[in-house]
Amino acid sequence: MHLVMIGGSDAGISAALRARDLDPGADVTVVVADAYPNFSICGIPYYVSGEVTHWRNLAHRTAADLEATGMALRLDTTARRIDVGGRKLLVTAADGTEELIGYDKLVIGTGAVSARPPISGLDALGPADGVHLLHSMGDTFSVMRTLEHSAPASAVIIGAGYIGLEMAEALTARGLSVTQMEQLGEVLPTVDPELGALVHAELAAHRVEVLTGTTVRQLSRASAGGAARLRVDATAAGGETISRMADMVLVVTGVRPDTELAASAGAALGVRGAIAVDRGMRTNVPDVFAAGDCVITHHRLAGETYLPLGTTAHKQGRVAGENALGGNREFAGSLGTQVVKIFDQAAARTGLRDHEAVAAGFDPVTTSFEADDHKAYYPGSHRITMRVTGDRATGRLLGMQLFGHRHAEIAKRIDIAATALFHAMTVDAVSDLDLSYTPPLGSPWEAVQMGTQAWTRLARSG
Amino acid sequence: MHLVMIGGSDAGISAALRARDLDPGADVTVVVADAYPNFSICGIPYYVSGEVTHWRNLAHRTAADLEATGMALRLDTTARRIDVGGRKLLVTAADGTEELIGYDKLVIGTGAVSARPPISGLDALGPADGVHLLHSMGDTFSVMRTLEHSAPASAVIIGAGYIGLEMAEALTARGLSVTQMEQLGEVLPTVDPELGALVHAELAAHRVEVLTGTTVRQLSRASAGGAARLRVDATAAGGETISRMADMVLVVTGVRPDTELAASAGAALGVRGAIAVDRGMRTNVPDVFAAGDCVITHHRLAGETYLPLGTTAHKQGRVAGENALGGNREFAGSLGTQVVKIFDQAAARTGLRDHEAVAAGFDPVTTSFEADDHKAYYPGSHRITMRVTGDRATGRLLGMQLFGHRHAEIAKRIDIAATALFHAMTVDAVSDLDLSYTPPLGSPWEAVQMGTQAWTRLARSG
Repeated sequence: MHLVMIGGSDAGISAALRARDLDPGADVTVVVADAYPNFSICGIPYYVSGEVTHWRNLAHRTAADLEATGMALRLDTTARRIDVGGRKLLVTAADGTEELIGYDKLVIGTGAVSARPPISGLDALGPADGVHLLHSMGDTFSVMRTLEHSAPASAVIIGAGYIGLEMAEALTARGLSVTQMEQLGEVLPTVDPELGALVHAELAAHRVEVLTGTTVRQLSRASAGGAARLRVDATAAGGETISRMADMVLVVTGVRPDTELAASAGAALGVRGAIAVDRGMRTNVPDVFAAGDCVITHHRLAGETYLPLGTTAHKQGRVAGENALGGNREFAGSLGTQVVKIFDQAAARTGLRDHEAVAAGFDPVTTSFEADDHKAYYPGSHRITMRVTGDRATGRLLGMQLFGHRHAEIAKRIDIAATALFHAMTVDAVSDLDLSYTPPLGSPWEAVQMGTQAWTRLARSG
Repeated sequence: MHLVMIGGSDAGISAALRARDLDPGADVTVVVADAYPNFSICGIPYYVSGEVTHWRNLAHRTAADLEATGMALRLDTTARRIDVGGRKLLVTAADGTEELIGYDKLVIGTGAVSARPPISGLDALGPADGVHLLHSMGDTFSVMRTLEHSAPASAVIIGAGYIGLEMAEALTARGLSVTQMEQLGEVLPTVDPELGALVHAELAAHRVEVLTGTTVRQLSRASAGGAARLRVDATAAGGETISRMADMVLVVTGVRPDTELAASAGAALGVRGAIAVDRGMRTNVPDVFAAGDCVITHHRLAGETYLPLGTTAHKQGRVAGENALGGNREFAGSLGTQVVKIFDQAAARTGLRDHEAVAAGFDPVTTSFEADDHKAYYPGSHRITMRVTGDRATGRLLGMQLFGHRHAEIAKRIDIAATALFHAMTVDAVSDLDLSYTPPLGSPWEAVQMGTQAWTRLARSG
């Protein structure tokens, strides 16, 4: 039984590890397009900032660790074409050699590629000009070359999602003056604007210039007179033109699934053009599974969606690896649980926001509440801002969003809510959970429970 | 409809708040034996340490806050006797006046009192000698008088449960030299000795002398020659006698339910002599409910037990308040979820340990595992030591114990496990939970999931 995984990131490696874990006799090969298997893409901003002192530390496991589990790695090897009938994968090695690798089962984990927004001049500029996309280790090395060789004093970051915000912090930490441009009305558009505004304030408090409602139209080399090398022209919310000069431009406006290989083999595509898979991570192509950022996401509340996240890729890869061995595991579904640290604060969400809940057929109500992370009489307490979403008719918990200090246990608190959501609890029933308490670390009612109690009061009165 | 709550701590106040919240027309009186309604008993060690700068800050709500909700407070008023047939409560006010208060429904929240271990000489010594029990605000003021007026240089703490450990930290913070004596084989006997040993090491690292397996036999005034005022004689594990001289002795060896009033009214008692109640917090006495540290605890995995905790008292009080109004709420049950901070570390548990699981009819296996609180490549990561207990036959999750740095989100991580336990998940299914991730605050698989995955590997191979 020969299993071949395509992709050295979360999904491919998780599939390979799971197969080797379940069947120490399984013959597992992982085809990796670059030399960086099992690298933590989410850690890139912390390498750029200097907090991670060597890029090698970003590896979840080294190549040697991976090979010690009994899998074979084919690094710098590009998967070109799948011969479905013959169950063979055509690959090209770094030296250009072509080879056919036979498989019994194939797991596609080709991931995602950076979206290229429609900005005039973008395609003509690249890393050598100080203009960067950022998704892979290769992109990271390009960014580091710019930082180390050109010593830029200023940067414009286009996009204010997770990676955009983390890079604003990273470049600020390196001493650059940063301007962040976001097309939508508030930064971190994956949370409600009420929380996005708090993130915005944290950026501003660290001297990041934040321009929301701002659509970048054109990138160009700066005129000879100025010191800065690049010029960014944008349209502001009011319609006026805004221009900024910068030594470096980072374009981080999201990703799209990399489906070329799968589609060419006849794989059906679904939401947002991602590979269609069932909950067992099976594509419609015989003996071919797919997982991670290249596939659609089954969401427990919203049905089929596209929601590329490392946590999800790990889970989907694990299912694919087990099923490639003949198992019958199902991906339990995503809740879109996410957290991001922005300087000294953190923002997190799980489940659905109002508009998403409406789209999923619910009748949502969202309420805001503030609570302390631990008893305020004990030193060092921080306020947590919460937004709780529940269904008006059934009282079912639909989602939660949290914002607070990086030491306010925002990430694990959203996980409590995510675990409650997983089990389709009502907002009211969250108060039944027996959660821990000691004054330096919490309250007799956990903050999450204070938030759900506030929702119930409002829903009853509203 | 006149509701009377007896007790100004978590259960009584929660019942009163709930009743007022649900029915703004409800006539609610709370009879409080002292002048400190709604004080955070769990916060006492942090007032003693000096971290809480005024005892008034320990109030969850002030008396004025409570009265603003519409409840009437009868402070310094002792409940003496219940006239069940006449539905009247006999009370004595501070000035000795007796009064009968009529009620339609009564909620007993008399709490617990300090256990007095069988130590020779203990009954003859008291606060004036520097010998203290510690459970109430009154006890706290006595301790503070000793600390402020006698300026003790050394203390022996008898007992190494939650309050004993917290007081070891508090007195160390005040500059006292502390010896902690524990009869059982390891400190914090509510967790497995493997974790207790880590707590022990943390105490030792802060120069607390820890004597485990040590049974205190006698307390006496020290002989005239020495500077210290008290002498503690104990028997060590090996049978030899150990003596310590100290300026102050704290006896914190647990509590027993205060049931005198309820029992005299005919209330049936259950486990450990606590008041027997159903899940609606009804005693067997008509129109009389009881909640908090004076009642038995319904445990979701272990059935009826006695497990006095503030979190539980809040939940039970809330149920009692709702049902006293004619509602039909049920206490969902405890999982014994607890956390304690000891200097820079925290220890937490939820669910059952091996011997408790055996007693509850399960066939448990417990495994140990270590994981980082967040990706180790990001600065400031801490190791978490975990113990996961699951049922061999069914794979059901039965319990979890965690130990790690106070910033390693131990409390909220045990809450994730508690929420999984609440829903009777299998150990294996914990990996299906969609939990949050960002490198500074976690890992793609949350540490709790790494622990459950390790359990599954061991259970499969074992």
